[in-house]
Amino acid sequence: MYAERLEKLAQIIEENGCQGMALNAGPSLSYFTGLHFHLMERPVVFLFVPGNKSILILPRLEAAKVDKTGWLKTFFYDENPQGWQKVFSDALNSLGAVQGKFGVEPLQLRYLEYSLLKSNGELSLVDGSGFIAAVRSLKDAGELELMQQAVNIAEDSLQAVLPLIRLGMTERELAAELVLQLFKHGSDPDLPFAPIIAAGPNGANPHAQPSERKLQEGDLLVIDWGARYQGYVSDLTRTFGVGDIDEESVKIHEIVQQANRAGRAAGKENVACRDVDLAARKMIEEAGYGRYFTHRTGHGIGMQCHEEPYMHADNEQLLRVGMSYTVEPGIYLPGINGVRIEDDVYISEDGAVSLSSLPRSLIRVG
Amino acid sequence: MYAERLEKLAQIIEENGCQGMALNAGPSLSYFTGLHFHLMERPVVFLFVPGNKSILILPRLEAAKVDKTGWLKTFFYDENPQGWQKVFSDALNSLGAVQGKFGVEPLQLRYLEYSLLKSNGELSLVDGSGFIAAVRSLKDAGELELMQQAVNIAEDSLQAVLPLIRLGMTERELAAELVLQLFKHGSDPDLPFAPIIAAGPNGANPHAQPSERKLQEGDLLVIDWGARYQGYVSDLTRTFGVGDIDEESVKIHEIVQQANRAGRAAGKENVACRDVDLAARKMIEEAGYGRYFTHRTGHGIGMQCHEEPYMHADNEQLLRVGMSYTVEPGIYLPGINGVRIEDDVYISEDGAVSLSSLPRSLIRVG
Repeated sequence: MYAERLEKLAQIIEENGCQGMALNAGPSLSYFTGLHFHLMERPVVFLFVPGNKSILILPRLEAAKVDKTGWLKTFFYDENPQGWQKVFSDALNSLGAVQGKFGVEPLQLRYLEYSLLKSNGELSLVDGSGFIAAVRSLKDAGELELMQQAVNIAEDSLQAVLPLIRLGMTERELAAELVLQLFKHGSDPDLPFAPIIAAGPNGANPHAQPSERKLQEGDLLVIDWGARYQGYVSDLTRTFGVGDIDEESVKIHEIVQQANRAGRAAGKENVACRDVDLAARKMIEEAGYGRYFTHRTGHGIGMQCHEEPYMHADNEQLLRVGMSYTVEPGIYLPGINGVRIEDDVYISEDGAVSLSSLPRSLIRVG
Repeated sequence: MYAERLEKLAQIIEENGCQGMALNAGPSLSYFTGLHFHLMERPVVFLFVPGNKSILILPRLEAAKVDKTGWLKTFFYDENPQGWQKVFSDALNSLGAVQGKFGVEPLQLRYLEYSLLKSNGELSLVDGSGFIAAVRSLKDAGELELMQQAVNIAEDSLQAVLPLIRLGMTERELAAELVLQLFKHGSDPDLPFAPIIAAGPNGANPHAQPSERKLQEGDLLVIDWGARYQGYVSDLTRTFGVGDIDEESVKIHEIVQQANRAGRAAGKENVACRDVDLAARKMIEEAGYGRYFTHRTGHGIGMQCHEEPYMHADNEQLLRVGMSYTVEPGIYLPGINGVRIEDDVYISEDGAVSLSSLPRSLIRVG
């Protein structure tokens, strides 16, 4: 599997006039090698040069992880950071003619690895995130199955939490209960993100953190949560009504349901990402709330919670079979409340298929 | 509190001949501003120039987070990444004479932010991690109290798990149970790291991931785990015996206990970090196992699980009152087993004080 993925990457690297790719610890390194390293103060770098033996630079204390990787040439360094530069130079020099362009991931590579890679002066680093995305964004059946499991875990966990919601409960209490259920239902220990539980005016902040605010009659309650299963994640949002809620709240919830439906329906092979965004956005704009939908409609999802492709109004990239992303329109009324409804979908030959199936309608809790 | 921290930072920046500091999303930004942003595909950068109004560059959808921060000059960008460069340039230009050196954090700043900061060509970026560490590594009483809570949560969680350990249980099952208990006992949802549960030969890999291997009679069982409480973390390790274990296992456990004790005792104000490492290492070397202690003795701990100062054999940095770090010597016998015993300590005026107090002796489980 990894050889096949690297073969695809090799072709893209060559098409783009590059010599290779330098990946540091993170999901892409895992995706292409099957090896797992945390992004820590000790740099781990995988150098892939098509036609050459691949190189891995890593701390000696991780040696046991690469015992069975005869296909890799390994360069180990010790605990004193002052010795790291030489090990990086040795690794780069072992490639012979390393002059030329290497792709890197701007969202993953840090100034630490950048400096170590650049210091021998022969490498020109370029944005290679597109090379990676061209392979990683096309999920195979095995990956989609893991994503389905991550969605199922998230949905089952929320179902277990809903009956426990009470007036007077704080956002933090509710978040703790949801996290507990995610682990009980089988999520990997590293959640894709800490759940957002945002009620009343807090819901107007799309990235709110759970607070000590207590649930009140009339609140809209935004729950944005996800699970990880064997490295693949889910990311869902539903918005509930706490007790009796007012007319405008019901109305904006209904508008966001329509926008979510339109966004999901718009996804098809060869449709531009922007058209997914515009389909959802149009429903909200036509209802007069356009200026309160302050973010893009969605983001790719897979091993990372946010990855390519992004569903924003200027992205002309075309959807392809196997791409997976969120559809998550929202309306945010500052100081009042917010609504967001988010699903995880993938592109099949018959269009977008939702991995998530929890009801999207306005359910009352508390 | 934040103004005071920035005042200290200002002094260090000036002493080092720099104009300012550029911090991206992460713990240092939170430490100095009280604002919390995830490290995501949308860059968030805080520009601190002593004597000028501080600048924050962030996505428009995060606007609600900075509503009450009149002390900040904010620059918002929209969802299309092609517009980000201009917003960064505007922010940098607003500083007037930005020529000169800005400190950055090589472990935190990504190629993404690096490129956006560099593209107007006037900034020279230098490694400013030492500037940050000079402030952040000296914990105040409030911070130490949060770390104590994080240790208490971790210790109580392990106590709850120990009676559940059975022969035949897998490492993954045990890890899931421990994670559950961490949340039941009040950990923040984002654990500092996924627990390491490594039995028998798996324990010989210091960074093992929990596997499907079942606990067997005679295993040494390494458990390395931690909690987060209000943003501060704990990181502990204990090694247990599963049923009857052989003589060499008992012996290496005893040696590591002695090394842990010596490492803890060595910490005092004005002692070099290397001497903490050497004190622990000496015990293991003298017992003939020096080559099986493959990593440094410890790392600083606080808002991050690994931060300055590092206890390695070449670090001549002096300990100061308020510094906090781990003491975690180990012996790793490839293909056989491993032992590690890890505590979190801080430097008081009377020497190193351990925040953790779980027994370090060889306890039998299963």
